[in-house]
Amino acid sequence: MKNYTVAILGATGAVGQEMLKILEERNFPVGKLIALASPRSVGKKISFRGEEIEVKLAEAGAFEGVDIVLGAASNAVAKELAPAIVKAGAVFVDNSSAFRMCDDVPLIVPEINPEDAKNHKGIISNPNCSTIITLVAVNAIRKASEITALTASTYQAVSGAGAGGPIELMEEVKADFEGNSYEPKIFSKQIAYNLIPKIGSGTENGYTTEEMKLQNEGRKIMHLPELKVSCTCVRVPVVRSHSISVVVHTKEPVSVEKAKELIASAKGCRLTDELDNDIFPMPLDTSDQDIVFVGRIRKDLINENGLNLFCCGDQVRKGAATNAVQIAELLIEK
Amino acid sequence: MKNYTVAILGATGAVGQEMLKILEERNFPVGKLIALASPRSVGKKISFRGEEIEVKLAEAGAFEGVDIVLGAASNAVAKELAPAIVKAGAVFVDNSSAFRMCDDVPLIVPEINPEDAKNHKGIISNPNCSTIITLVAVNAIRKASEITALTASTYQAVSGAGAGGPIELMEEVKADFEGNSYEPKIFSKQIAYNLIPKIGSGTENGYTTEEMKLQNEGRKIMHLPELKVSCTCVRVPVVRSHSISVVVHTKEPVSVEKAKELIASAKGCRLTDELDNDIFPMPLDTSDQDIVFVGRIRKDLINENGLNLFCCGDQVRKGAATNAVQIAELLIEK
Repeated sequence: MKNYTVAILGATGAVGQEMLKILEERNFPVGKLIALASPRSVGKKISFRGEEIEVKLAEAGAFEGVDIVLGAASNAVAKELAPAIVKAGAVFVDNSSAFRMCDDVPLIVPEINPEDAKNHKGIISNPNCSTIITLVAVNAIRKASEITALTASTYQAVSGAGAGGPIELMEEVKADFEGNSYEPKIFSKQIAYNLIPKIGSGTENGYTTEEMKLQNEGRKIMHLPELKVSCTCVRVPVVRSHSISVVVHTKEPVSVEKAKELIASAKGCRLTDELDNDIFPMPLDTSDQDIVFVGRIRKDLINENGLNLFCCGDQVRKGAATNAVQIAELLIEK
Repeated sequence: MKNYTVAILGATGAVGQEMLKILEERNFPVGKLIALASPRSVGKKISFRGEEIEVKLAEAGAFEGVDIVLGAASNAVAKELAPAIVKAGAVFVDNSSAFRMCDDVPLIVPEINPEDAKNHKGIISNPNCSTIITLVAVNAIRKASEITALTASTYQAVSGAGAGGPIELMEEVKADFEGNSYEPKIFSKQIAYNLIPKIGSGTENGYTTEEMKLQNEGRKIMHLPELKVSCTCVRVPVVRSHSISVVVHTKEPVSVEKAKELIASAKGCRLTDELDNDIFPMPLDTSDQDIVFVGRIRKDLINENGLNLFCCGDQVRKGAATNAVQIAELLIEK
């Protein structure tokens, strides 16, 4: 069995650290692991399979001999280094949003469109975290009917803002507990005991960049260029799993029983839907896992061809690191 | 000016305490205040206008000479005592859900259907908290077009479960902070750093009792018997303001500009909608106030005749106690 040289770009961040963990967990055939980061992290040690690996500078010359680069860096870093990665002959599986909507870059959720990965030209993008979690749930229903539209309201964990997000939430809780004040740094407002209904920046139609990702990326991943998505993204004081309340609008009516059956048997999904027994998807239950929990499935009360559901998944894992490692697995499949 | 004898039924609970505060704040012409509660609170002292008032037993004989009873007790207590209240000639403004859907009981949001209060036969119901907050925002848009349907996802504060809700959230945060475990008592699951997508109990169609209130009560309050509402109710670790992400489906298209203008000028609403300046409705900003903040107004991306918005209001005040006192004010208006 061939072993691969894998570089993690942004190895010291929240997603980079999780990528290392998941490569180990899934026994990805790593021959050599290269940890790359920005100047301030160079020289730090990270741990992989019990070995200490020194963090090197993320720069154009760092990719010689690398097979796969897992990107967990900013859009700017991804854009700067992508040409060098491609030139070195590596495949860049990038978690930033820099290349997601480029025509010649596949955007992959392995449970949905694994075949698209074959058409890469050196770069494959990992979708937005809420998009991955929502679509893993929604896509399961396509076996019964095509999807025409989604109405979504998100409940997004602080981990979505990087390693600093959970730290800030806990600092705020501690300050409140001790009667001290705390000035938010990561978020624009206090997030402890609060909600922030703005993620990303505003766009011309009044939606945020984060809200438009579900439509833009959803169309590309599901090959549904006409898909309409109306989304509201809200940051909530939850540590690391994102939840989404979704109305799935379908071309043909789909019964609740059929939808439950499809969710229960879909790759990457777990049906958690027994309301009377208090079984429903919850962030605490899905954290540190790769499965999207789906529940509260019921007929929409407005549209005959609509189903309501609530889904929940670990934003750092399935929403980012695990999905990227799954893409890398597609690359090494025969 | 006539003064009124006002009784608070459930005077020691979260909503009852807030009712006392709001009667003071709004200078309601209270001649005599009677505080009623269950046996375990009898003899306790509550404070009203600087005076100490002894809590008496909530029983059928307690309503002689009372003009207005503000009810902040359970459905069971409301049902048990309503006949005695009506017989004593008082008007029962009841915050429980016991009588809300009864044909001869007006269900009032003073900003929406104050004239319905005239038709009472001794009982007026105060609507569900999320319903009040959502409808104050949605109703403002009716001046431009009739409303046909609402798609809503709620973000409901722990205060909705009564005084024990915020205590439990804080106990859980404290336990987590100190590394101890905590067994939930008020909620079925941990609410700190979590979400619970079930409020109330399940019904036959898969929706919860809480979710159906927005449709059932909304139809009655807005006099829209055909209104369709598809709602998902979620408990969030926020102390006391409820937030709702709503798609307002209208008969005629309504522009974002028109909707903003209507919200800005509507009674009980404040337009907080400057995305680029980080101005949007947030629970922390609306707590301890009576105004529903409305923002994130934008065209729905699925339906031409749809508007998305996010609204937020204090669940204990406008969602319960203030609305009840406002109803009492309608009763004493000439």
